[in-house]
Amino acid sequence: MSMYTYEHKLRVRYGETDQMGVVYHGNYPLYFEEARSEMMRNLAVPYAELEKIGVIMPVVDMHIRYMKPAHYDEVLTVKVQVVKLPTVRIICRYEVINEQGVLLTEAETTLAFISKETGRPVIVPEAWLSKLRPYFE
Amino acid sequence: MSMYTYEHKLRVRYGETDQMGVVYHGNYPLYFEEARSEMMRNLAVPYAELEKIGVIMPVVDMHIRYMKPAHYDEVLTVKVQVVKLPTVRIICRYEVINEQGVLLTEAETTLAFISKETGRPVIVPEAWLSKLRPYFE
Amino acid sequence: MSMYTYEHKLRVRYGETDQMGVVYHGNYPLYFEEARSEMMRNLAVPYAELEKIGVIMPVVDMHIRYMKPAHYDEVLTVKVQVVKLPTVRIICRYEVINEQGVLLTEAETTLAFISKETGRPVIVPEAWLSKLRPYFE
Amino acid sequence: MSMYTYEHKLRVRYGETDQMGVVYHGNYPLYFEEARSEMMRNLAVPYAELEKIGVIMPVVDMHIRYMKPAHYDEVLTVKVQVVKLPTVRIICRYEVINEQGVLLTEAETTLAFISKETGRPVIVPEAWLSKLRPYFE
Repeated sequence: MSMYTYEHKLRVRYGETDQMGVVYHGNYPLYFEEARSEMMRNLAVPYAELEKIGVIMPVVDMHIRYMKPAHYDEVLTVKVQVVKLPTVRIICRYEVINEQGVLLTEAETTLAFISKETGRPVIVPEAWLSKLRPYFE
Repeated sequence: MSMYTYEHKLRVRYGETDQMGVVYHGNYPLYFEEARSEMMRNLAVPYAELEKIGVIMPVVDMHIRYMKPAHYDEVLTVKVQVVKLPTVRIICRYEVINEQGVLLTEAETTLAFISKETGRPVIVPEAWLSKLRPYFE
Repeated sequence: MSMYTYEHKLRVRYGETDQMGVVYHGNYPLYFEEARSEMMRNLAVPYAELEKIGVIMPVVDMHIRYMKPAHYDEVLTVKVQVVKLPTVRIICRYEVINEQGVLLTEAETTLAFISKETGRPVIVPEAWLSKLRPYFE
Repeated sequence: MSMYTYEHKLRVRYGETDQMGVVYHGNYPLYFEEARSEMMRNLAVPYAELEKIGVIMPVVDMHIRYMKPAHYDEVLTVKVQVVKLPTVRIICRYEVINEQGVLLTEAETTLAFISKETGRPVIVPEAWLSKLRPYFE
């Protein structure tokens, strides 16, 4: 199966835990966003650049399965996969893995490409698409 | 279709917005949690009491569909529905609606009932189940 | 001593606690902001209106003293005081008090009035000042 | 002036901005915590280890001066300084500096060393003190 995969590492902050002693479930979207942002930069088009040319990428769908908890100070690996060539939307899959190699969380997000000016969907910018295309041929 | 429904209102904080000028998608889990917490209190068993008797309720699955954005200072109505009588898990559905009656976001969460001591699944406490049962008969 | 005081109540969310089992110290700015926002609305000029006329109010200084912890599900009272008539800045003092009347946290914030267009300081809008003046005469 | 200084770099997440288009003022405590946590690890006693031996370190005082805003995707340098040899409390100073070398934010925090079991203040663990002592002689 063709796809583009990127791995990002991050360390859990104290303020991201809750009184169960684990990472609060509502903080994972921040981890996915950070990993996705690094994936985009690695593909040579930082998301910040995209906003500058008038394209925003709101999340329109997010599905998270929490299997095992993550803890304060652990280094987590977040794997991001672009599962098919994006058009007006991009679907990413995520796996969060701890230092022992245990899969903690799986997720899938859909983001839309939207014109800041018109609020309407736009096609993924060619600059980005041209980098992704080789992975899907 | 039998179900228990609860409506909770909350106001968007400035710090919950992001630079798109709308509520950051990763903050909705906090809204769902607040509404679910009030739903449980309204059913007469606050979640805080549950933790005191050694039962925790981690979120094991969360699916959110973002349709329209919410904005700073808006009063949002979060409708929570318990869609079937819980056993070792409880499934809730959510609708986030703004002051104009527009449906902004839909979600579904699954939470497990877990013994704090053993880490094993437990049946939903009878004190809570007895309150829910009439809605599903 | 002349001053304007406003009291706001809010309930602690689960996601606002950390693994010490208390409210994470970094979440209090959200509580102060919520109370300050309600104070402004109560004075008849919601902050959202202010932004619409091109005035933003960044926080330029914040000092918090944490004396006792707050816990999940507690209802906290946040008292906000405007200690003197604002000019290009407004100084607010805060007290966070729990349901047993215990003072948990004290704070002071300074916010500037800034023109969104020029980025320069501006005088507090007269619409707001006229509401505050009677408390300081 | 004797002191121990540590520099930590981090990148601003999208979810840490607010609708002013800059980092929300209430998110800086997370940055200070992350930098302080790395400073402690670098000194060879990770905070997580300290909690394991029954010592917690609540923040008892925090003072932040916001001079210039930070933006999404910027890499920030957080300098942490331990300004004197800690006893039952530790005072840290922070500077947040952007990629252009501009000082954005200054802060000072005081954390207490507290026994998890008794809730009482304790002396900073010797394992940590012995690492700090050379910087203050």
